[in-house]
Amino acid sequence: MKAAVVLVSGGIDSATTLALARQSGFDCYALSVDYGQRHRVELEAAARVASMLGAREQKIIKLDLTAFGGSALTDENIAVPTSPSSGIPSTYVPARNTILLSLALAWAEVLGSSDIFIGANAVDYSGYPDCRPEYLQAYEAMANLATKAAVAGVRLQIHAPLVDLSKAQIIKRGVDAGVDLSQTLSCYQPSRGGQACGQCDSCRIRRKGFEDAGIADPTVYV
Amino acid sequence: MKAAVVLVSGGIDSATTLALARQSGFDCYALSVDYGQRHRVELEAAARVASMLGAREQKIIKLDLTAFGGSALTDENIAVPTSPSSGIPSTYVPARNTILLSLALAWAEVLGSSDIFIGANAVDYSGYPDCRPEYLQAYEAMANLATKAAVAGVRLQIHAPLVDLSKAQIIKRGVDAGVDLSQTLSCYQPSRGGQACGQCDSCRIRRKGFEDAGIADPTVYV
Repeated sequence: MKAAVVLVSGGIDSATTLALARQSGFDCYALSVDYGQRHRVELEAAARVASMLGAREQKIIKLDLTAFGGSALTDENIAVPTSPSSGIPSTYVPARNTILLSLALAWAEVLGSSDIFIGANAVDYSGYPDCRPEYLQAYEAMANLATKAAVAGVRLQIHAPLVDLSKAQIIKRGVDAGVDLSQTLSCYQPSRGGQACGQCDSCRIRRKGFEDAGIADPTVYV
Repeated sequence: MKAAVVLVSGGIDSATTLALARQSGFDCYALSVDYGQRHRVELEAAARVASMLGAREQKIIKLDLTAFGGSALTDENIAVPTSPSSGIPSTYVPARNTILLSLALAWAEVLGSSDIFIGANAVDYSGYPDCRPEYLQAYEAMANLATKAAVAGVRLQIHAPLVDLSKAQIIKRGVDAGVDLSQTLSCYQPSRGGQACGQCDSCRIRRKGFEDAGIADPTVYV
């Protein structure tokens, strides 16, 4: 079985991505990052997801992005918006996917893997620039010049199987792949017990996704 | 003054790069990473360099790359080579510059800076793929699709002013710019007191650089 590194945050998208990677026959290494996110409890969901979907191993890497701040998710003085706004919301974390993919690239090279999976989605999303296909393509091009493996002729692929799906489609795909979505967490400001606020961007997109998919929303809201 | 993020490891190249960035009129924010490197004492040199060259601020970010290993610098079971070998040596750290630049990108965006400096060099170097100009160009292209700043039209530049200089030229450039090179550390396996081994790749390239430049080598060897 070919090894793949899968970025797993604990939300619907990364859980579905992990399930699809497993269905495609990959031996999956789940990578999660404890970056000081406000919704740190998502790491518990990430561990559940990695385990229930049969990841070979999960690593949780610590990296304190609150040292930079600049986001509602990494600076507690910036509030999480609870109503829709125009433009990219303050929950955007500077360079987050670039950092996450770079850590995945490092692990992939050590594992001898040429496949990285990310649950990026550019349809029902918050407009984060590092979720768009053109960004992911540029990342892949860069990565294929970055490593000893690349110099040796290994062609790295960044897989983003959800990139052009709607949230409803992702939810259906996840359910079809056997993902227990009740075990995932999307909320940016959950309670300590992991109950969702129902008001942040991420909750709104998720809730509407279940409605559009015609699937009962298993999320526990506060 | 325009702000720039400068990656500072504590070696000759990053010290000279910081001095050149200051000479070009940038207000410099020095970024160093405590990634579990064998030669962790380099971080003391990085702090000296940042301070003596007038960085506005230095941040040292912790990120444990020994969790991945795969390099003589992040796995204590892999020995640092002490004689020249063909190919990329085992001191190569998977995806290191990609990770370092990604952290610099995050900080730059938070600072509102569009300039990142890195002391990468592809002449007298160890053949690390992530030091080559084509890699740096691809990184810059990716970065210009990655951020909210990029979407807003800010054009990020990766400056690698040493990329096509020999080590001797870098040393001369550093001395001309007033860098006290005795305060830098290049060795991959220094003593606890920061004395250089004189045998690793990095020491050999440095020593020869001073010889070729006709400048007395201020390095303290064990």
